[in-house]
Amino acid sequence: MRNSRQTKKHSKAAGLPPGTLIYIGDKKLEKPRITVIDYDEQSFQEKQLPKIEDCFEFKAKPTVTWINIDGIHDTEVIEKIGSHYDLHALTLEDILTTGQRPKFEDLEKHLFIVLNMLSFSDEKQQIQAEQVSIILGPNFVISFQESIGDVFEPIRDRIRNAKGRIRKMGCDYLMYSLMDAVVDGYFSILERFGEKIELMEEELVASANEQTLKRIHQLKREMIFLRKSVWPLRELISGLERSESGLIAESTAVYLRDLYDHTIQVIDTVESFRDMVSGMLDIYLSVLSNRMNAVMKVLTIIATIFIPLTFIAGVYGMNFKYMPELEWKFGYEVIWVVMLIVAVIMLIYFKRKKWL
Amino acid sequence: MRNSRQTKKHSKAAGLPPGTLIYIGDKKLEKPRITVIDYDEQSFQEKQLPKIEDCFEFKAKPTVTWINIDGIHDTEVIEKIGSHYDLHALTLEDILTTGQRPKFEDLEKHLFIVLNMLSFSDEKQQIQAEQVSIILGPNFVISFQESIGDVFEPIRDRIRNAKGRIRKMGCDYLMYSLMDAVVDGYFSILERFGEKIELMEEELVASANEQTLKRIHQLKREMIFLRKSVWPLRELISGLERSESGLIAESTAVYLRDLYDHTIQVIDTVESFRDMVSGMLDIYLSVLSNRMNAVMKVLTIIATIFIPLTFIAGVYGMNFKYMPELEWKFGYEVIWVVMLIVAVIMLIYFKRKKWL
Amino acid sequence: MRNSRQTKKHSKAAGLPPGTLIYIGDKKLEKPRITVIDYDEQSFQEKQLPKIEDCFEFKAKPTVTWINIDGIHDTEVIEKIGSHYDLHALTLEDILTTGQRPKFEDLEKHLFIVLNMLSFSDEKQQIQAEQVSIILGPNFVISFQESIGDVFEPIRDRIRNAKGRIRKMGCDYLMYSLMDAVVDGYFSILERFGEKIELMEEELVASANEQTLKRIHQLKREMIFLRKSVWPLRELISGLERSESGLIAESTAVYLRDLYDHTIQVIDTVESFRDMVSGMLDIYLSVLSNRMNAVMKVLTIIATIFIPLTFIAGVYGMNFKYMPELEWKFGYEVIWVVMLIVAVIMLIYFKRKKWL
Amino acid sequence: MRNSRQTKKHSKAAGLPPGTLIYIGDKKLEKPRITVIDYDEQSFQEKQLPKIEDCFEFKAKPTVTWINIDGIHDTEVIEKIGSHYDLHALTLEDILTTGQRPKFEDLEKHLFIVLNMLSFSDEKQQIQAEQVSIILGPNFVISFQESIGDVFEPIRDRIRNAKGRIRKMGCDYLMYSLMDAVVDGYFSILERFGEKIELMEEELVASANEQTLKRIHQLKREMIFLRKSVWPLRELISGLERSESGLIAESTAVYLRDLYDHTIQVIDTVESFRDMVSGMLDIYLSVLSNRMNAVMKVLTIIATIFIPLTFIAGVYGMNFKYMPELEWKFGYEVIWVVMLIVAVIMLIYFKRKKWL
Amino acid sequence: MRNSRQTKKHSKAAGLPPGTLIYIGDKKLEKPRITVIDYDEQSFQEKQLPKIEDCFEFKAKPTVTWINIDGIHDTEVIEKIGSHYDLHALTLEDILTTGQRPKFEDLEKHLFIVLNMLSFSDEKQQIQAEQVSIILGPNFVISFQESIGDVFEPIRDRIRNAKGRIRKMGCDYLMYSLMDAVVDGYFSILERFGEKIELMEEELVASANEQTLKRIHQLKREMIFLRKSVWPLRELISGLERSESGLIAESTAVYLRDLYDHTIQVIDTVESFRDMVSGMLDIYLSVLSNRMNAVMKVLTIIATIFIPLTFIAGVYGMNFKYMPELEWKFGYEVIWVVMLIVAVIMLIYFKRKKWL
Repeated sequence: MRNSRQTKKHSKAAGLPPGTLIYIGDKKLEKPRITVIDYDEQSFQEKQLPKIEDCFEFKAKPTVTWINIDGIHDTEVIEKIGSHYDLHALTLEDILTTGQRPKFEDLEKHLFIVLNMLSFSDEKQQIQAEQVSIILGPNFVISFQESIGDVFEPIRDRIRNAKGRIRKMGCDYLMYSLMDAVVDGYFSILERFGEKIELMEEELVASANEQTLKRIHQLKREMIFLRKSVWPLRELISGLERSESGLIAESTAVYLRDLYDHTIQVIDTVESFRDMVSGMLDIYLSVLSNRMNAVMKVLTIIATIFIPLTFIAGVYGMNFKYMPELEWKFGYEVIWVVMLIVAVIMLIYFKRKKWL
Repeated sequence: MRNSRQTKKHSKAAGLPPGTLIYIGDKKLEKPRITVIDYDEQSFQEKQLPKIEDCFEFKAKPTVTWINIDGIHDTEVIEKIGSHYDLHALTLEDILTTGQRPKFEDLEKHLFIVLNMLSFSDEKQQIQAEQVSIILGPNFVISFQESIGDVFEPIRDRIRNAKGRIRKMGCDYLMYSLMDAVVDGYFSILERFGEKIELMEEELVASANEQTLKRIHQLKREMIFLRKSVWPLRELISGLERSESGLIAESTAVYLRDLYDHTIQVIDTVESFRDMVSGMLDIYLSVLSNRMNAVMKVLTIIATIFIPLTFIAGVYGMNFKYMPELEWKFGYEVIWVVMLIVAVIMLIYFKRKKWL
Repeated sequence: MRNSRQTKKHSKAAGLPPGTLIYIGDKKLEKPRITVIDYDEQSFQEKQLPKIEDCFEFKAKPTVTWINIDGIHDTEVIEKIGSHYDLHALTLEDILTTGQRPKFEDLEKHLFIVLNMLSFSDEKQQIQAEQVSIILGPNFVISFQESIGDVFEPIRDRIRNAKGRIRKMGCDYLMYSLMDAVVDGYFSILERFGEKIELMEEELVASANEQTLKRIHQLKREMIFLRKSVWPLRELISGLERSESGLIAESTAVYLRDLYDHTIQVIDTVESFRDMVSGMLDIYLSVLSNRMNAVMKVLTIIATIFIPLTFIAGVYGMNFKYMPELEWKFGYEVIWVVMLIVAVIMLIYFKRKKWL
Repeated sequence: MRNSRQTKKHSKAAGLPPGTLIYIGDKKLEKPRITVIDYDEQSFQEKQLPKIEDCFEFKAKPTVTWINIDGIHDTEVIEKIGSHYDLHALTLEDILTTGQRPKFEDLEKHLFIVLNMLSFSDEKQQIQAEQVSIILGPNFVISFQESIGDVFEPIRDRIRNAKGRIRKMGCDYLMYSLMDAVVDGYFSILERFGEKIELMEEELVASANEQTLKRIHQLKREMIFLRKSVWPLRELISGLERSESGLIAESTAVYLRDLYDHTIQVIDTVESFRDMVSGMLDIYLSVLSNRMNAVMKVLTIIATIFIPLTFIAGVYGMNFKYMPELEWKFGYEVIWVVMLIVAVIMLIYFKRKKWL
Repeated sequence: MRNSRQTKKHSKAAGLPPGTLIYIGDKKLEKPRITVIDYDEQSFQEKQLPKIEDCFEFKAKPTVTWINIDGIHDTEVIEKIGSHYDLHALTLEDILTTGQRPKFEDLEKHLFIVLNMLSFSDEKQQIQAEQVSIILGPNFVISFQESIGDVFEPIRDRIRNAKGRIRKMGCDYLMYSLMDAVVDGYFSILERFGEKIELMEEELVASANEQTLKRIHQLKREMIFLRKSVWPLRELISGLERSESGLIAESTAVYLRDLYDHTIQVIDTVESFRDMVSGMLDIYLSVLSNRMNAVMKVLTIIATIFIPLTFIAGVYGMNFKYMPELEWKFGYEVIWVVMLIVAVIMLIYFKRKKWL
């Protein structure tokens, strides 16, 4: 679970002065991969850089520069960017400390955003989170990811092929596009969840067992995690909209409003899912109760039918010297008839009580 | 369920640039049907148009023009309207993406409203939702629906026959009337729900079974869905009232206030229903518990009466050489009397404990 | 239940233009009864009027005029009042649509209040609601009720006999007095509920059965209804206090503050009752559980004592040729002793486990 | 319970004009006891007065005058104070109507506070509430209590012996001291509750029975009551702090802030207790469930061991002519061995399932 | 539990004038230990002082002076500091009254903060809380702790070795560092909790017993306690940020914002844990229910198989004179076959019902 990871990290960093740069997270890559995409309406350039210093030349150019860094365990790289782009030590610390709560900060010269990029791992059948930190400056966007592989490929395509308006817009629109891609990713997660929940609901009534309970619980935990990633977004985006940094153009604000609507929709869906999942537990419990009822009924029917019959047989198994019935010619047959009548009366009684 | 539909759509559109127009929803119609109603206090005109371009001539006229489009899968039609009426690409995207959260947006020159029109399908015994998008301009109202068939027929009648004040009022009143018709539709849905709940409550006590649980759960999900459609209306209408666009006349504001009251009433009723439905589950569980109790009692009574009697019969079925009772003249009769006494004592005990 | 009534009404009126006057409710009276009380510090006059027009003469007089109309199914009467006192069509519609949510509206020239007057019907053992609409003008108060019979008799007495300060105060104080009488009525309803709840709690522990469950549920529904009537009052009264219409004198504002306190007290009590009622269900379930426990114990004790004994008797009922015990002189007696010892050991075990 | 008392009172007063002075509560004293404490930094005077008029002479003096009235059933006394100190009829009504919600009112010339003084009755093992109304004027404090006996004795001591700063401070500090004493009383109530809860928790696991359920419920009701007394205090004190009457000196405001902190602490503790008490019910139910489990296990073990054995004995009790085993020399012994083996296998199975 | 301790303290102090200095808490030290650390960018000095008066000399120096007092039972020391640094009596009372709610107060010349320093005692397997009070003046920080041993050692190290920026910053940064250390301590507590919860969840499914219930309950109580320590921090820090005292430099405000983020993260995690713990109880109950089901099934299977067989054996144990089957050559063998068939049918039935 992500939770314990975050707390572990913090306790690992405890005692160090604030702003000390140590990477807290799993090392997912050998060497950070640095890619630069530089574009304006006319020109376009995409490079993979061996050294971080190579990207500093773009700072002076008026074009939009998107520096993407996959792998943030190399604190030296982060430090260099920090000093070159004049970032606060605490901001760098936030970038390195994965498992953060999504947040937005209005540093004077930059905007800083932390997001959780979620993906569904088919192997582990589990949500996987990766922290994405984005820094927006006047003519650059820097994004930090924990590992290679992200949801930004369509954006790169759009830039390469000048699809849509992205090449005509500025850095703020690029940042919006990155955020939009992350939030769109939530929708596919939710779709998965929707399917999981529907499947679970069918399973619940058809074949609930102790595994089901575990799975409901697992679902609930994932929901709690999803919620923690999504709720802060609301505040984050409205903070971004209200930001007075001048880094966000009026024409982009419309898109942010649209993104806000999407976020609300994600939150709404998460809340409905939560309601459904917590309803499942109730159903699970009543399914158990129902089954117990069914078991009890069978026991009762069998027992109530045979207990009196066994008693009758027991009576005529007694060894009293003087038991007139035993001497009767058709005593045995008579007793069978009596027992049958008793059994039938019982069955009718159960039928009436609707236990059969 | 609507939920998964919405999320599916989003994941389908993921990766496309924002503002790309693709229809997300089921294709319910072959060809969009475009109807125009144009009126003022004196004149009235109603036409079905083959092409969308035919309605553009009304734009210049000072009369109230209501363009209604049934079927929004033809993105070309939407695009043409968009470019002619100068709508933002994101607005068009919202119109095409069905399954939206109800919302209001104050575009500078227009007001944009998204609503869920609900109807109760008697066949499927289920709520059906259709997205209605309304655009209010200075002298026109454009409404988009997913398919033919709506709750606006009474409004058309009132316009045709100049009933009420609708012909004397402007576009804003028409928009209010459409919203009012949608909200009135919620009342009939609630009425259905009210009946369903009452029926369910009777069924619960009379003949609860596993089907009942399923139905309660279904009811709960519909309630969650209804809630999601209704809650945002509150904010939507009060946003509309506060709008400073100048498109809403003071005389119409009174009606919006009235609509707001109706919405609050719908929300109140939905909340009460929610309370009742969640109360039902408790009742269901305790009905189960009660039944189990009843079954247990019968088992206990039968077992506790016959177990000692069977024991007595067993004792006199033993083959000891020296068992004086066996030799008695009336041993058998005596043992019957003993067994009867034991049974009667038991019954009296149960009577006292109120288990009978 | 009131709920379904309200929604039915709305769906009945659906499709009509807003402001159309049709009465929605049960027709409780043949003919509306119109009474006028006109007073100031010196004079007093009370009349029952055959026609609504007869009361219009009072409009010009500076004295306080209280027009009370019992029975609102005659839309003509309402319409006449509406046109004479210059009321908005929507206000008249609100008066006619019973089952409204309590609300306050600041019409420019009047204040408009809708309240629920509750009474406890001893016959039906149920709360009964009647809608009271009050219009406050500069020198008149008009109140509309669904049927004859109200909680305003003490106010009429005070006016007739010039008791208290009512004859010295204006219309606003009269309106306050009517509202105060309605809220005081809630206290007597709450008193009834308090008694009901106490009775129910005793019944719960003493003799809970399926009827109890039904009654708890009934109580819960009445609580939901009561809550819906009371909660909006809070906002209503504080809206009234903040009203800038000039119709409410400073000296009356003190009384409204007092009324507000009473309303808060009613809400507080309703909330406590809700807590108690929802606690009852928990108790009910655990009482059931306890009883089941008791039944189970008896079954266990009887079964566990006799099952081994029956086994012993069974053993000596076997027909093996060589069973030494059967030949013993006191075999039978010995076996009785053994069985007694087994039974006693069992009883001691149960005693220790505190199952006896 | 206090609740029903309050509602009864209200329904008793229903129909009377507002501001009518009738005492609503139990008559706890024969005659009201009036005591006056008058002090400044130098002088001190304490008297018990036979008539209320005797205290009016203090009004003109610049010293701090504290008039305390125990017993408020004598409406004449209240009325005289009211007219002499120029109090509003509604304020007097509030003083007389015990069972009020704590509140603060900023009358123009005075501040008016209603509090619930709680004490724990050791006899009845119940919380007892007494209403304390306090009026703060420019140079006097008047406090009204329902009966003799209060938590103010330490304050009187401090005044008599000039301990602390009380003799140096004004009326506002005296009022603060009274409030502080009442809130300090809550802490001792909470301490009692804390002990009760700890005891209950031990009892729960050790020896839960139907009495326990009743006691948990009782605790819950007392918690609801406590909550109703404490929550309004928060608003009350912050209202007092913000009051612009000029009656509260800046130096006293610090103390009010401290009192506010204490109140928050009381509320926090009450909320934690509520959490714990509601957790108790869950534990109670699962303790019941556990016990039932234990009972069931014993039944199952006894039954499952002996039912097969009894069957075996039954088989060899059959009277078939040709049953070879019956003729065996050691048939009886063999069958004992078989039965022992069966029993041992069963026991091992149960051991494995951890039912033993 | 801390709760009862706090309430006990309060009731102990009840009756004393506010601002009276008595220590409320356990005496954990013989003699308070006073240490002074005095530093600026160049100089550094660390001393343990025998008398509190020795530290007063530092007041005049412009360097940062951190006075730390371990052990606050000696009211004389506190009083001396109070008079020398001009602290309000209520502030001193707050320092002495351990078990406070975390709070921030803006005294005019100082800022005053109360925090709960939490640590996990491995011996008692319990959270332990210690109150830390911090006073920030223009050139000094005074911290009060209940006993020796704290989480501030790394800060002392950083000051001694001039690590990080602490030696370059002022008193406000020192105060921030202390608060940061306390909040970092919460993360390690949360890590412990996370492990505990994971362990508990595994235990729940594997081997739930009555001890588990107790432990879940214990966990829940600790969570309630943790929550009470953490929630007020949010308000505390944002109060500190908004403080207009001029004691907090702009450069330090950034760090406070960072601390605020950490606090939010702690709160988030606590809330998730709460959700998980309350989910555990549901799981616990359903695990119990499942087990009962399993027990019931075994009983049912054994009983339902053997009851009919025993009945058959009973039949042929009857002593009727004329029972043809008894005379058959292979009657005994036939009856065994019959009984086997019955048993097999039963088993197939159970298999189908999935009870096996």
